[in-house]
Amino acid sequence: MKIKNLGIDEGLFNRISEVAQHMPFYNLLGIRITALGPGYAELMVSTGADHANNLDIVHGGLLLSLADGAMGNAVRSLGILATTVDFNTALMSAAPLGQDIIAQGQVIKAGRNLIFTKAQAFVGDKQVLETRGTFFRMGKIDFEE
Amino acid sequence: MKIKNLGIDEGLFNRISEVAQHMPFYNLLGIRITALGPGYAELMVSTGADHANNLDIVHGGLLLSLADGAMGNAVRSLGILATTVDFNTALMSAAPLGQDIIAQGQVIKAGRNLIFTKAQAFVGDKQVLETRGTFFRMGKIDFEE
Amino acid sequence: MKIKNLGIDEGLFNRISEVAQHMPFYNLLGIRITALGPGYAELMVSTGADHANNLDIVHGGLLLSLADGAMGNAVRSLGILATTVDFNTALMSAAPLGQDIIAQGQVIKAGRNLIFTKAQAFVGDKQVLETRGTFFRMGKIDFEE
Amino acid sequence: MKIKNLGIDEGLFNRISEVAQHMPFYNLLGIRITALGPGYAELMVSTGADHANNLDIVHGGLLLSLADGAMGNAVRSLGILATTVDFNTALMSAAPLGQDIIAQGQVIKAGRNLIFTKAQAFVGDKQVLETRGTFFRMGKIDFEE
Repeated sequence: MKIKNLGIDEGLFNRISEVAQHMPFYNLLGIRITALGPGYAELMVSTGADHANNLDIVHGGLLLSLADGAMGNAVRSLGILATTVDFNTALMSAAPLGQDIIAQGQVIKAGRNLIFTKAQAFVGDKQVLETRGTFFRMGKIDFEE
Repeated sequence: MKIKNLGIDEGLFNRISEVAQHMPFYNLLGIRITALGPGYAELMVSTGADHANNLDIVHGGLLLSLADGAMGNAVRSLGILATTVDFNTALMSAAPLGQDIIAQGQVIKAGRNLIFTKAQAFVGDKQVLETRGTFFRMGKIDFEE
Repeated sequence: MKIKNLGIDEGLFNRISEVAQHMPFYNLLGIRITALGPGYAELMVSTGADHANNLDIVHGGLLLSLADGAMGNAVRSLGILATTVDFNTALMSAAPLGQDIIAQGQVIKAGRNLIFTKAQAFVGDKQVLETRGTFFRMGKIDFEE
Repeated sequence: MKIKNLGIDEGLFNRISEVAQHMPFYNLLGIRITALGPGYAELMVSTGADHANNLDIVHGGLLLSLADGAMGNAVRSLGILATTVDFNTALMSAAPLGQDIIAQGQVIKAGRNLIFTKAQAFVGDKQVLETRGTFFRMGKIDFEE
């Protein structure tokens, strides 16, 4: 599936897309980016048997990973190389197996050292998490302009 | 590897161990329990290429999943069936690939409705995360006494 | 200053307003409600010398209290009696002394047992915090309909 | 009441003590430091009518402020000038009015840019909160050695 570019530099867009497509942990979990805009990223995972916990619903760890990825790529969409410092989330509803989960990450403020972000994830209309994340800026993403 | 029983009922111990060994998401990530005590759980993952992020270190999502599992099984060690409501963590240091990560979860207080927990994870001597989690009690774990 | 009613039952509105106006801790800090709507509350504090920390800016504790109040009253605006279980916030910018801080709290989801909320606070146009809070439902607010 | 010095430089100890004793927000709330050690601070507040919420127990905002202060002074005990970036807490039990609340803050890791801390607070034997905080390092505390 093609990733939508909602308005960031094409070189940066290609760089982020490529990195995500080759990231082993995303491939292990089946996470992929579906859209990137300035300070915004949308990620998706189609859940299946591998993602189950003992109650036969989606394991919370998948939701946490997806939310972290949504915020991380929202930061990357600004060309910023950063690392997660603080991650916190409410898990609001169970996510059933066999459905798509969509997470939307957003940068609230990109400061000199710290970047503040949030994310939400949905299964259909149902919001399953509300997340906040703080990142520490390490440098710039290297890409061909 | 055998799971250590640090003092919980043998029937409950067997039930939790069995559930963890067959949980698809743990198997996907390579997470396993190494010890269970009253209000305590120790989990481990031997990291490898599959767990990498774009910087060739362990993806934060694995750490989050491990911490969630450590707290969740600490709750389960008290015979409580519960679900994560609030999860929050500091990611204090990068975890290099190819090493074991050990997480220790602990119940701080098991109230009538809410269970408060914390977890820490280590790579060797280095602490990589400090986590707090709040769980909502749904019932009791069913096991043969 | 009159509190704006953005659309909740008049009896409930009067009850919440009255409680806030007589709450000792709000009076100590100078916190007051400025608007209430369904699942929404706006609170304000005019900062002064009493609120200072050692750097002569607003002490973080005031911001935390204000955010907690904004989320708590957003919950109360639904007629729900509840208690804060989990509170977490990013402090994004310093708040200078001598200016108004306005906090807006919102209910994200009011479940059977748990209520998920968020809040933001601003000094003028500048956002100073982004907060998430989880509440536990204890009952209904008693008021004259 | 005298503040206990559990092993930090006397000049630094005097500087932190003095700052806390003159901090307007602490004085407004009645918060004071009772002990300082390397990476450790203990704070106390004797609660009274002014700290009440609408249920006639201690308002959560006082607990949040106390926890923030405990972590902040634990950071200061290392000679570090820093600001709270992320603050998150579980409120585990109600704190009745008219009793002392004691909070103990501890530095988990003091990194080059970020300092990770935690705090607990107690009313008698009862733990009322468990908190985590992340601080950003701004410089050194100026004091006479």
